[in-house]
Amino acid sequence: LRSDQSETRTSLRMKAVLSVVLVLVVISSTIAKYIPKSGKRIPQTLSRGWGDQLIWAQTYEEALYWSRSRNKPLMVLFHLEDCPHSQALKKVFSENNEIQKILDEDFIVLNLVYETTDKHLSPDGQYVPRILFVDPSMTVRADINGRYSNRMYAYETGDINLLISNMQKAKKLLKAEL
Amino acid sequence: LRSDQSETRTSLRMKAVLSVVLVLVVISSTIAKYIPKSGKRIPQTLSRGWGDQLIWAQTYEEALYWSRSRNKPLMVLFHLEDCPHSQALKKVFSENNEIQKILDEDFIVLNLVYETTDKHLSPDGQYVPRILFVDPSMTVRADINGRYSNRMYAYETGDINLLISNMQKAKKLLKAEL
Repeated sequence: LRSDQSETRTSLRMKAVLSVVLVLVVISSTIAKYIPKSGKRIPQTLSRGWGDQLIWAQTYEEALYWSRSRNKPLMVLFHLEDCPHSQALKKVFSENNEIQKILDEDFIVLNLVYETTDKHLSPDGQYVPRILFVDPSMTVRADINGRYSNRMYAYETGDINLLISNMQKAKKLLKAEL
Repeated sequence: LRSDQSETRTSLRMKAVLSVVLVLVVISSTIAKYIPKSGKRIPQTLSRGWGDQLIWAQTYEEALYWSRSRNKPLMVLFHLEDCPHSQALKKVFSENNEIQKILDEDFIVLNLVYETTDKHLSPDGQYVPRILFVDPSMTVRADINGRYSNRMYAYETGDINLLISNMQKAKKLLKAEL
């Protein structure tokens, strides 16, 4: 009798284990995520490599809203993934801890690969890389320029210190809070 | 004498090793990446959890450009991170392989947490979650609706099949290519 009971118990345990396995198989096949035919992709980031630790706005409207409501200047960075000047600047920009720290603490940041409809963001044309500052009063700071007179908002890798001093200039808001 | 030479060699080797270590320390401290005071952040993704394998447009302008140039309809999805209806829909939406596959192969996709200035994208008001389809001819498909007469572009988790049939409707372009 005892041996029989023991066998029954073993059999029941087996069934329980099999049920659990079956449930797990069903669950995992149900929640298997979609994978494109061309293979799994790495999710795109909003930073696009310009500073993974910064909190990037997605659109200009969103950036303007944050800038106004937090009373912080906005940096808008136009670039292209297949532009070697953009890529070179991106490397220096993202690896410069001083830039990253100031941007994180004192700025709203937005990087765009596609132009907006707002012409104030292209005072002397649409080119990349191009960096514009916008005051929380929603005024584009056309007075904050880089080194090149024909492309006043362009920066090269050697212009990082000028960029930092321009960031300091942008931090002095046009209209101080009372 | 030999013993002396051996000691000198060992000493030189030690110095060499120490120099290399020093150089490595200097390099690593130079390239150490910026980390915010509040701690390391996970980079934000453009998908925001609505489908990590899809290629998301960043802005409406970008999405319209892709839609026109690739002759694919555009899905614009308005949502909020702190809206429980958005979050519930996101879970069902991102885990539904049929939706993900159709979107990946036949649509341009854009998700926004901030409204655009284009009023055609809010035909009956600004609410979330809200899904609008745009034809490659740049016409907002106001005729493609969900289940609710007071919020014609809202979808709940139970409306997934209706959403899929609406996606099929959007795939029939207003003006077929010749």
